[in-house]
Amino acid sequence: MGRKIHFTKMHGIGNDYIYIDSSLYKIGAPNAFSTQWSDRHKGIGSDGLVLIGKPTIGGADFSMRIFNADGSEAMMCGNASRCIGKYVYEKGLTREKLIRLQTLSGIKMLDLQVDVNDTVTSVTVDMGEPILDCPEQFCPKANLPEGTFVSIGNPHYVIFTDNVDCVGVLGKTLECHTAFPERCNIEFVRLNEDGSLRTRVWERGSGITMACGTGACATAVAAALTHRCGRTSNVVMDGGALHIEWRETDNHVYMTGPATFVFEGEIDIP
Amino acid sequence: MGRKIHFTKMHGIGNDYIYIDSSLYKIGAPNAFSTQWSDRHKGIGSDGLVLIGKPTIGGADFSMRIFNADGSEAMMCGNASRCIGKYVYEKGLTREKLIRLQTLSGIKMLDLQVDVNDTVTSVTVDMGEPILDCPEQFCPKANLPEGTFVSIGNPHYVIFTDNVDCVGVLGKTLECHTAFPERCNIEFVRLNEDGSLRTRVWERGSGITMACGTGACATAVAAALTHRCGRTSNVVMDGGALHIEWRETDNHVYMTGPATFVFEGEIDIP
Repeated sequence: MGRKIHFTKMHGIGNDYIYIDSSLYKIGAPNAFSTQWSDRHKGIGSDGLVLIGKPTIGGADFSMRIFNADGSEAMMCGNASRCIGKYVYEKGLTREKLIRLQTLSGIKMLDLQVDVNDTVTSVTVDMGEPILDCPEQFCPKANLPEGTFVSIGNPHYVIFTDNVDCVGVLGKTLECHTAFPERCNIEFVRLNEDGSLRTRVWERGSGITMACGTGACATAVAAALTHRCGRTSNVVMDGGALHIEWRETDNHVYMTGPATFVFEGEIDIP
Repeated sequence: MGRKIHFTKMHGIGNDYIYIDSSLYKIGAPNAFSTQWSDRHKGIGSDGLVLIGKPTIGGADFSMRIFNADGSEAMMCGNASRCIGKYVYEKGLTREKLIRLQTLSGIKMLDLQVDVNDTVTSVTVDMGEPILDCPEQFCPKANLPEGTFVSIGNPHYVIFTDNVDCVGVLGKTLECHTAFPERCNIEFVRLNEDGSLRTRVWERGSGITMACGTGACATAVAAALTHRCGRTSNVVMDGGALHIEWRETDNHVYMTGPATFVFEGEIDIP
């Protein structure tokens, strides 16, 4: 006989995942479920699947595993981290406003901004230090358009261009470029007159997405490195804007933005 | 204070709608909710919203109102009708296997095929008689590619072509062609060697969809009229196949295919 799985649909500026409390359910094959459930016509529809669980290491409060729509496992996702902050606080799994989240990229600190109604209005995620070393494989950058490599949880290649809509044409090609043996996320970025950064994102394993938290951080770092912006900036993606601070004191990147509940659901599995 | 609305996500060969029992809830502005909820990243994600309710006329068992993702109201949808058959039977709203469904295109008969486990395996919908009269506006068909006009619940213009993938390029243009003052659904159809009809659909108000029940009927009728097929055919759309019979005895078109539950959900509304 089958069983029923309770899930929560959430989005962080349009980056939408299926959230499951994996301390309640044993999800045997999350890769396969992520693919099946992410189907936007015959499944639940999402960018992927996030499992929220107990940590498996000391010094963490919760753990996150995240799977893309193609079934591959991601190391970290900033937008999903913010949603987890809202999820664990508003569903009463914790009363802490500083939460240590175990991810495949290490422990991430979440700082929840909570209003008088006990609603989480935004979450700041310490995304850690960016890694700016160019992977050997693409130095020299033969056949790659000029860009900046920034790894922050996930690897990103940030290209400044006036035509950010080329994401659809170039994203897939560059994701699988020989320069990136493990594939790469690609950002196409235009500096707006108001100083904000208009970014369109191609995520490895998912294609064009509404927003990508680590991509926003990589964008802001690349803009600071190339003197297009200072240490703080607003990154505007298809699904909304994030505030990014690349703090001078600790070299960490802090990402602040909203998280949104959409609906609660229940699905049968065999 | 807000309230919670229970909904069911279903699809008929990939044509996916949000189904709500409107006898339980008063949905004040279904057009606006259809647009908001259909958003595939920030909403529930669907081709539209279907309200299942009590009939407002005699001779019907249930009523259906159907709204596209752009908020416009559709007259009828064959895939949604099959889902309603499964919904009302398996949720115990009726024990009848012949159901009369009130739609904006009149009362439609549903004939449920039910297995030994009381599961609805497929549903046949009597789609009524096709209307073959060309609307005056596009006779002569100035600037329109050659095609066959078939109205069956909704108006369709069926174009036989080897390149059915031109749906993305031509669909939107033809939907709003001056020949169709009330816009039109457009089908691009290739006759396969096995006699089946490969159809890609552009639905007015929704764009490319995985499948369209009335579009499958229009395709089969157009193929029979142009002697590409006999009175029965299998129409293969992106989301799956439907069996269509254009019955000689009553001139009605009968569409048979599956309907699928995906998940149950609950969403807050203000």
